[in-house]
Amino acid sequence: MPRLKSNTSMCSVARSLELIGERWTLLIIREAFFGTRRFDDFQSNLGISRNVLAERLAKLVRAGILVQTPLHEQTLRNGYVLTKAGYDLVPALVALLQWGDRWMQTPETVPVYIVERKTGRAIAPVTVRSETGKPLALKDLGWLPGPGANHPSIAPLVKAYARQREQAAAVRKEAS
Amino acid sequence: MPRLKSNTSMCSVARSLELIGERWTLLIIREAFFGTRRFDDFQSNLGISRNVLAERLAKLVRAGILVQTPLHEQTLRNGYVLTKAGYDLVPALVALLQWGDRWMQTPETVPVYIVERKTGRAIAPVTVRSETGKPLALKDLGWLPGPGANHPSIAPLVKAYARQREQAAAVRKEAS
Repeated sequence: MPRLKSNTSMCSVARSLELIGERWTLLIIREAFFGTRRFDDFQSNLGISRNVLAERLAKLVRAGILVQTPLHEQTLRNGYVLTKAGYDLVPALVALLQWGDRWMQTPETVPVYIVERKTGRAIAPVTVRSETGKPLALKDLGWLPGPGANHPSIAPLVKAYARQREQAAAVRKEAS
Repeated sequence: MPRLKSNTSMCSVARSLELIGERWTLLIIREAFFGTRRFDDFQSNLGISRNVLAERLAKLVRAGILVQTPLHEQTLRNGYVLTKAGYDLVPALVALLQWGDRWMQTPETVPVYIVERKTGRAIAPVTVRSETGKPLALKDLGWLPGPGANHPSIAPLVKAYARQREQAAAVRKEAS
């Protein structure tokens, strides 16, 4: 039986979660979304120790999610701002927040409502859509092997899914 | 200085990630998305030990993401299928996959393309939208304290953000 241990590092979801799944890392990104830039503000807002904060900020800079930038023109002190990759995390984090609000909270415990700034109105639930904008449910989604599907750590998985798909199709054909 | 340790369990994003951020849990959910239902299929597709798999499946059932159901009418053996809360994870996981594809892979290593099943065409990037369907960037988003904002573990954080927001507004006013 093929052991697929290393496929976690091939899977894009696992790669994303390896980075943002860590507690402090996630909270630092949330702070950056709220506009926090100064080391001392991250520190006092989160109640995190200075050495852990420095280590996590460095990790996020290495990962290309934050970049160091001068805080003001008149100073040499650096702050931390989101890169394009950092801003690009917004849909995933808003979707996780909405899921948590719906399934892990009660209406009495929801801590924060995300709204459209200009109107103050609640945003829509994040939805998967076709290229033409049609909402898609799980049953409407398919997948195709990408160029990385031949990687020895992921190929057995791709084959297993293809086999399951064929079996499911055969069962449906038999039933009809 | 207030320590905000317990606020991770208040934050909806942190609550979501506490559940799906665990490596095997995430992979089991991915399997369920691909249609895997039988214990033995989860086991051989993932190369996970039977006792770890049993423990993680039980955790997902307790969390209301999977539910046990008979595999066929003629058998007493149970399989595992996604609940409504489980299906509702699709937008968050697709958003994480797209982010990973864009920022943690090269075009040569993308393992799987998600497509619209009916057309075979790539789906759109998951986007945050207003209730009228307008795409919203981070700068277009605001937040309002929810009923859980008064919780002792999160109230200092809400105050800190409100203070930062006022300071930023004052700086903008000064500059204009």
